Amino acid sequence: MAKIQTVKFKNRPVIIGSYSIVGPKEGQGNFKNYFDYIMQDDRFGEKTYEQAEKKMIQHAIIGAIEKAHLKTSDVDLLLAGDLLNQIISSSYAARDFSCAYLGLFGACSTMAESIAVGASLVNGGLFNNVVCSTASHFSTAERQFRFPLELGNQRPPTSQWTVTGAGSCVLAQSGKGPVVTSATFGKVIDWGINDVNDMGAVMAPAAMDTMLTHFRDTKTTPDDYDLIVTGDLGKLGSEILIDLMEDQGIKLGLNYNDCGQMYFTREQSALSGGSGCGCCATVLNSFIMKKLQDGKYKKVLFMPTGALMSTTAAQQGETIPGICHAVVIERGED
Amino acid sequence: MAKIQTVKFKNRPVIIGSYSIVGPKEGQGNFKNYFDYIMQDDRFGEKTYEQAEKKMIQHAIIGAIEKAHLKTSDVDLLLAGDLLNQIISSSYAARDFSCAYLGLFGACSTMAESIAVGASLVNGGLFNNVVCSTASHFSTAERQFRFPLELGNQRPPTSQWTVTGAGSCVLAQSGKGPVVTSATFGKVIDWGINDVNDMGAVMAPAAMDTMLTHFRDTKTTPDDYDLIVTGDLGKLGSEILIDLMEDQGIKLGLNYNDCGQMYFTREQSALSGGSGCGCCATVLNSFIMKKLQDGKYKKVLFMPTGALMSTTAAQQGETIPGICHAVVIERGED
Repeated sequence: MAKIQTVKFKNRPVIIGSYSIVGPKEGQGNFKNYFDYIMQDDRFGEKTYEQAEKKMIQHAIIGAIEKAHLKTSDVDLLLAGDLLNQIISSSYAARDFSCAYLGLFGACSTMAESIAVGASLVNGGLFNNVVCSTASHFSTAERQFRFPLELGNQRPPTSQWTVTGAGSCVLAQSGKGPVVTSATFGKVIDWGINDVNDMGAVMAPAAMDTMLTHFRDTKTTPDDYDLIVTGDLGKLGSEILIDLMEDQGIKLGLNYNDCGQMYFTREQSALSGGSGCGCCATVLNSFIMKKLQDGKYKKVLFMPTGALMSTTAAQQGETIPGICHAVVIERGED
Repeated sequence: MAKIQTVKFKNRPVIIGSYSIVGPKEGQGNFKNYFDYIMQDDRFGEKTYEQAEKKMIQHAIIGAIEKAHLKTSDVDLLLAGDLLNQIISSSYAARDFSCAYLGLFGACSTMAESIAVGASLVNGGLFNNVVCSTASHFSTAERQFRFPLELGNQRPPTSQWTVTGAGSCVLAQSGKGPVVTSATFGKVIDWGINDVNDMGAVMAPAAMDTMLTHFRDTKTTPDDYDLIVTGDLGKLGSEILIDLMEDQGIKLGLNYNDCGQMYFTREQSALSGGSGCGCCATVLNSFIMKKLQDGKYKKVLFMPTGALMSTTAAQQGETIPGICHAVVIERGED
């Protein structure tokens, strides 16, 4: 039996609500007019950055539920994950929602992982009103994965800026909104990169693998999509992906872009661009959803990548594996 | 619309293979005659305990695939998770399998989370040959969550012994073996416990919540099951669960037990019993599967619990939330 990586959702789960919340820096970036909420300070009134991250994800979950014209008591299932050890932002946020919860870990690919799993469950008729959510925070990620901010370490040009933000959407069996029509579940790919400041190079091979699989399995080409968007390869990683795909005979054109690369303005000096679970999650649940709702985009290939990095593994000499999950989101019926 | 927590799998996904591997101490415990492989040393020939944990999960995945009479190339999807930060044992093990991968985090509830998600995907016809796997290691867990072993800290009577072991099973759309007939997806429950050495008390309320929901949703009582088994509440936690259920008017009898409580002999001084993802995973994929295959059990309610603990959250004064997912496994057709 041939291996399956791509599934079609015949029943076309509908994204009936979506919401994005970001930090002050993100709120001055290129998507500033699309976010639902821009925080005044990146502690969001909490004592610690970790508590702020949890509050952001809670805020995004509630926001998406309200935009879907539902109450929290209408939600069947919450699918969430984040970058922190034991995905505490998600698990602790889940305490406040009296619904079933599945914790996921796909690093920065989590927004697609949650939508792929959620759409599978909704498509199969098992659940309705499934909330998919993720978040990241610059200050929690830096201190967990790299250096405490207080050290003031200089950042190399390949490094990316973890987005402070959370995005959520609600999937339902019926309703009005964009629809999820297929998903390609990614493999773990490791080409031997071990630089924690070069996530683009870690993740580009995974993006290539999933993109090739997706095109092959769905018999589509880049021209079939209004937008093909990776999550947070950044400036360098997306160039690598374009090169890798060209080597495979597939030319990515102007309809390809990367959320991390687009996120900040030049003046914001975010080096290679945005990253983190919150990067593509806030772009998807603001800008991309708006364009789908407005009919500007008819078919989007959303493919966030995750670097499955760990300080423990790095200290033991391991390289960093990457993964990329893809979902196709199309304009729904009017 | 009423909230859904319990789903029925009409197409009855089949567990066509299962495998368990444990450490030397575990191999002297009460299930010693049921495990597939007992390691001679708990580093499994590797330099670090983390590398040993990764190797165990790889070994268990391959073992389950072989017992299902499949090749690794036949597998569509791997669902795995573990206790380590960024679930590195699972993600790094996944590098060696050229199939789609979904990382899950449900702490010690991961074996049920993976089966519940896997059975949903197989039931919906989206995937076939889905491997569910998890692992834990005493020495990696102790140093990540509590104290380095070198300190020789005294352990309080409520503390449990993280099982060194990995368990895997393969779910398929058809074949011979026990079948997964329903699942109850748990909520995150937090009753305010903050003692990292008393996981039973953290998780018992979550077990009660899922158990009550399961009995209500499936219109069953404890008498409908040959075995009702929690994951790693341990001696104390399972007593708490029995009390909590009695308060709710449901008496758990001799067909209720807990993998952690059963795992070690009295002489092994494991205090309140076994714990960790590997605890119930190795019991399910050895003893319980054997009894289902032999017809000794016809219907088992398998409900591992997870303590969603984190040192960061604990240091910031947070309590520890718990979660419990339940799956019903029945004897299949001969």
